[in-house]
Amino acid sequence: MITQSTVEKFLDDLASGAPAPGGGSAAAIIGAMGAALVSMVCNVTIGKKGLEAVDPEMKSVRELSEKLRRRLTALVAEDVAAFEGLMAAYRLPKLSEADKLRRTEAIQTTLRAATETPLDCARACAEVIGLAQRAGENGYAGVISDAGVGVLAAHTALRSAALNVYINAPSLHDREFAQQAIAEVEQLLEAGGRRSEAVYALVRGRSG
Amino acid sequence: MITQSTVEKFLDDLASGAPAPGGGSAAAIIGAMGAALVSMVCNVTIGKKGLEAVDPEMKSVRELSEKLRRRLTALVAEDVAAFEGLMAAYRLPKLSEADKLRRTEAIQTTLRAATETPLDCARACAEVIGLAQRAGENGYAGVISDAGVGVLAAHTALRSAALNVYINAPSLHDREFAQQAIAEVEQLLEAGGRRSEAVYALVRGRSG
Repeated sequence: MITQSTVEKFLDDLASGAPAPGGGSAAAIIGAMGAALVSMVCNVTIGKKGLEAVDPEMKSVRELSEKLRRRLTALVAEDVAAFEGLMAAYRLPKLSEADKLRRTEAIQTTLRAATETPLDCARACAEVIGLAQRAGENGYAGVISDAGVGVLAAHTALRSAALNVYINAPSLHDREFAQQAIAEVEQLLEAGGRRSEAVYALVRGRSG
Repeated sequence: MITQSTVEKFLDDLASGAPAPGGGSAAAIIGAMGAALVSMVCNVTIGKKGLEAVDPEMKSVRELSEKLRRRLTALVAEDVAAFEGLMAAYRLPKLSEADKLRRTEAIQTTLRAATETPLDCARACAEVIGLAQRAGENGYAGVISDAGVGVLAAHTALRSAALNVYINAPSLHDREFAQQAIAEVEQLLEAGGRRSEAVYALVRGRSG
């Protein structure tokens, strides 16, 4: 499991010429960092004197951000597996017609996984942006900048995951699924971009 | 050393209610991931058949991106130390006038470090953006999306580091240094934002 290696080892592996881990794994970890920062704001705020009124809201945000952190952490390994599956399919023999058919089918199956995994990552990151907004509005002012870093991280992870959807979806023979995936990611990007800029501005105002 | 803990342990520590690691450490790691992805694009491109012409350029980029990756990795620990120093200064006694004077001096000294550290991080991330542009223009098309993720990561890390400069600089008594720090970070943000959007667009275009 790649997330059980040290941060420095992960950075070494990322920098290496090996095809995985790459941008997809980096996106999932950056998204998980965004979720973790939202949880941090909740954890510092919960139980703080004078902020009792926001306790239930912060607890509700934390429950969701911790769930998304676990999902995004799991997506790191899923991204590597999807990518390696696709690479293995491309390496299948293509000598006979039967070979070619098998190879095409394997490529299509793994390509679908390599589109669904970043799409899942993008969805989770869009949810983290929404939670960062709630944390930024209600969290303790002393750690509000952490909600700002959290929303930037989630937005960058969303845009990074979107790149992989854009790369893989066009080669899918299932055009209906491909178009749906692209349409969904564009919607997530549009809403996520607007929302994350609003949260960053809110946080800058509250931390000035 | 925080970067020698596992990715999952780092995420747990980030999510906890402990004040460090927080957004500053997350920014440095995200910046280091940006630098690592630039190095990855270089490592995959160098020696690639048909791309011999860009070898010297990719080697020059990699030398710089690896240097910046080491610098940003070191900044994770420096950020935690600067933050903890500042917290310790705030906790100093303030009973006598002598106490108060000592405390004020300690706060000013540590506040300067807590402004310089994110400023250093912002500078390094701005350089990573420049390198991602060179990698995005010349790197092997098969991994060009990794340059896109790299530039988004570096830009988010720059904006995150900037938040900490904005938070700490206003309390500095040395107004000249504080204003210089804010002016520099605004310049880095302005240029970095424009440049990273251009690289993202370039990468989207090259990755189909």
